[in-house]
Amino acid sequence: MATPLKHIHLGAFPLDVGHHIAAWRHPDVPASGGSEFGFYRALAQTAERGKLDMIFFGDQMAAQYPEDETLGRTSRVTRLEPTTLLAALAGATTHLGLVGTVSTSYFEPFHVARKFATLDQLSGGRSGWNVVTSFNDKEALNFNRGEVAGHAERYRRALEFVDVTKRLWDSWDDDAFVRDKDSGLYFDPEKLHVLHHRGEFFASRGPLNIPRSPQGRPVIVQAGASHEGRDFSAGQAEVIFTAQPNLQAARGFYQDVKSRAAALGRHADEIRIMPGVMTFIGRTHEEAQEKYQRLQSLIHPQVGWIVLKRHLGIDLSGMPLDEPFPELELTPDFPSRQKLLIDMARGDGLTVRQFYERVVGARGHLLAIGTAAQVADQFEEWIDGQGADGFNLMLPWLPTALDDVVDLLVPELQRRGRFRHEYQGKTLRSHLGLERPASHYARAA
Amino acid sequence: MATPLKHIHLGAFPLDVGHHIAAWRHPDVPASGGSEFGFYRALAQTAERGKLDMIFFGDQMAAQYPEDETLGRTSRVTRLEPTTLLAALAGATTHLGLVGTVSTSYFEPFHVARKFATLDQLSGGRSGWNVVTSFNDKEALNFNRGEVAGHAERYRRALEFVDVTKRLWDSWDDDAFVRDKDSGLYFDPEKLHVLHHRGEFFASRGPLNIPRSPQGRPVIVQAGASHEGRDFSAGQAEVIFTAQPNLQAARGFYQDVKSRAAALGRHADEIRIMPGVMTFIGRTHEEAQEKYQRLQSLIHPQVGWIVLKRHLGIDLSGMPLDEPFPELELTPDFPSRQKLLIDMARGDGLTVRQFYERVVGARGHLLAIGTAAQVADQFEEWIDGQGADGFNLMLPWLPTALDDVVDLLVPELQRRGRFRHEYQGKTLRSHLGLERPASHYARAA
Repeated sequence: MATPLKHIHLGAFPLDVGHHIAAWRHPDVPASGGSEFGFYRALAQTAERGKLDMIFFGDQMAAQYPEDETLGRTSRVTRLEPTTLLAALAGATTHLGLVGTVSTSYFEPFHVARKFATLDQLSGGRSGWNVVTSFNDKEALNFNRGEVAGHAERYRRALEFVDVTKRLWDSWDDDAFVRDKDSGLYFDPEKLHVLHHRGEFFASRGPLNIPRSPQGRPVIVQAGASHEGRDFSAGQAEVIFTAQPNLQAARGFYQDVKSRAAALGRHADEIRIMPGVMTFIGRTHEEAQEKYQRLQSLIHPQVGWIVLKRHLGIDLSGMPLDEPFPELELTPDFPSRQKLLIDMARGDGLTVRQFYERVVGARGHLLAIGTAAQVADQFEEWIDGQGADGFNLMLPWLPTALDDVVDLLVPELQRRGRFRHEYQGKTLRSHLGLERPASHYARAA
Repeated sequence: MATPLKHIHLGAFPLDVGHHIAAWRHPDVPASGGSEFGFYRALAQTAERGKLDMIFFGDQMAAQYPEDETLGRTSRVTRLEPTTLLAALAGATTHLGLVGTVSTSYFEPFHVARKFATLDQLSGGRSGWNVVTSFNDKEALNFNRGEVAGHAERYRRALEFVDVTKRLWDSWDDDAFVRDKDSGLYFDPEKLHVLHHRGEFFASRGPLNIPRSPQGRPVIVQAGASHEGRDFSAGQAEVIFTAQPNLQAARGFYQDVKSRAAALGRHADEIRIMPGVMTFIGRTHEEAQEKYQRLQSLIHPQVGWIVLKRHLGIDLSGMPLDEPFPELELTPDFPSRQKLLIDMARGDGLTVRQFYERVVGARGHLLAIGTAAQVADQFEEWIDGQGADGFNLMLPWLPTALDDVVDLLVPELQRRGRFRHEYQGKTLRSHLGLERPASHYARAA
């Protein structure tokens, strides 16, 4: 008897008007895109039409200005607040999971517990929280801090933050609210739990002033790559986003995190690992390549130089774009990565333009360019090769790159028995095959 | 020539499943009410059908537990986070203003600026921020503080908070985003303003990572009654919520705030004063009275005793409910108010039950019980008597008390030429007749 094929989980990950740095110049991108509700509503409804598990919005609490972007050539300066955006989408969708980033650095657990519990209530159990620790100095400057805390401290804070938040979500037992109009009893005081938390970073008495939500707790998502980040994910995350450039690396990450989780007493099946992938899907391989090249050609040279400078530590602005990459002396502060990049450019005989186009690409994530069948092959290889449980789709431009996923790739995966034809449940946990967690206060049976 | 009649502004102010403490026991209130989206969506859509200016959700960042409510007889223990709720409603409505409370005590200006700018973008210009300073110790305990800051400090903080938030909203000029795909210019760097704020309570570099929103700035709402609160409102608020039990008091408040505003260089017409009113509207006066008495009779005696104890400082629990109010000795710590209440109870020959029913009532707000014509008379008297520019409708139970407003009162006000038949614009500012504010950075013409 054949083993049933492992299903693939898919999330739509819009960023601005697309993950590609030149996305906003693509003719399909609306000029007002990125700040109007209709743009996002259409994306969410397309993702739901494709039966995707979720839509995910990252966050950054600062405009990436002013430094390199003084030229006004980047669209990466605005970003709507993700939980507010997700709530608006909750009202415009019925099944799609709604996942958003909120940092543990500039909020308190009581805030975050309320936000996501509210979103879980309003969406009927579709919310997920992507836990990040902020390491961006530009964010710190918007929040009364001169600089960010150190790595280890940020993760200690995040761990306490998530723990307090989960306990706040459990403040009321699922059956605490009796609402007996005749007797006048609204809730059963025995089924209310007051936290009285005092820890290293936070004190919060509780209880949360929101009933336990449809999912029990919103889904915890995380994306840490460092040693501390992996331990945090292994202990806390139910979904892990990660950047893996190839199957070998992905397999290593997958095994590492799942064994760390096992060491912490969790089952491998309690975690879904979803690497990011930037897809360019065409009806032919050539069409897919053209879609990729079209965006690459829209990178403005000034933006290319900025990206190069950021990666290389050397300013090449003004260099001829279409001549061979110049001979460069290594600078003292950037040795290993700089040498690697320069060797690549010289070894592959790239011009300056070809070099920045390659560096910009998928920024360390998997780049999948091809027909639906070719991309599906690659996805299956990663799933069956234990490199992934699914993929977080970093749509290069919007909205039509998402249409390509839904209209071309999803039907191919469905034909292969790898993807749902209809939602089987109404909650994000149900789509992901994750159990509804018991309360901290539940008595053992 | 007759002066045109002054129009009345109306806001729907749902609280929990109704402002009356016994609302949850009313047969029209759904048992699941207060935590499901459908309940709120229906309210917002009813308010929009009635062409109301706005819907307003207050907030409290703590369950009112555990102290008096250990008995489980109150519904005032849960409350969805208002900005998340308003965002969900933005997706389900097209014209209704969306106003929510966020405290200046446990957030940073950058958070609040983002929340309301996002809501303003997603709703096409319908958001308003009710600025409060938190003075509740139960909230402080959820946010790592043992006690709240003093009154004067809270208002100094609020003033700096609002100032920084407004400046963040002005980070980008209205025409900053060029988005010229051909040339590759996304924004005009000259039209970006970096705040570099450093003050007593906050430091925030800026800029906000959201374009200037449809209303320029979300509407600022406030409800301070103290001396500092009135000064704050006079200087900052565009809408003022207030508790006024009768026209004389309302007129005094109205004149006081508008003259404080004038002293600060503002025009009286830049501020809308909207006292709270709890309405019981019937097709006959008797029907309205029955609606009121029905809710009063649903107050559980244990809840009545709790309310009495809170107001009187004396525990009457266990006293016979329907016998004359007992002779009580004054206690040393509660003198003036205690004597006032006891004298009222004895003087009016009230029983214990009659006493707590009277105290619970509208909690110091105007109580309007009658036919649509009678309530409209009262509203007109307040509007023409310069006691109000409109009313914030504290619906005693939900959803049917809102239906009474929309189906009975609104048509009566429309017949009298006092209320719009259709929305004339799409933004909350337009409904309120408030101008779109110029940016701090706008050059004088």
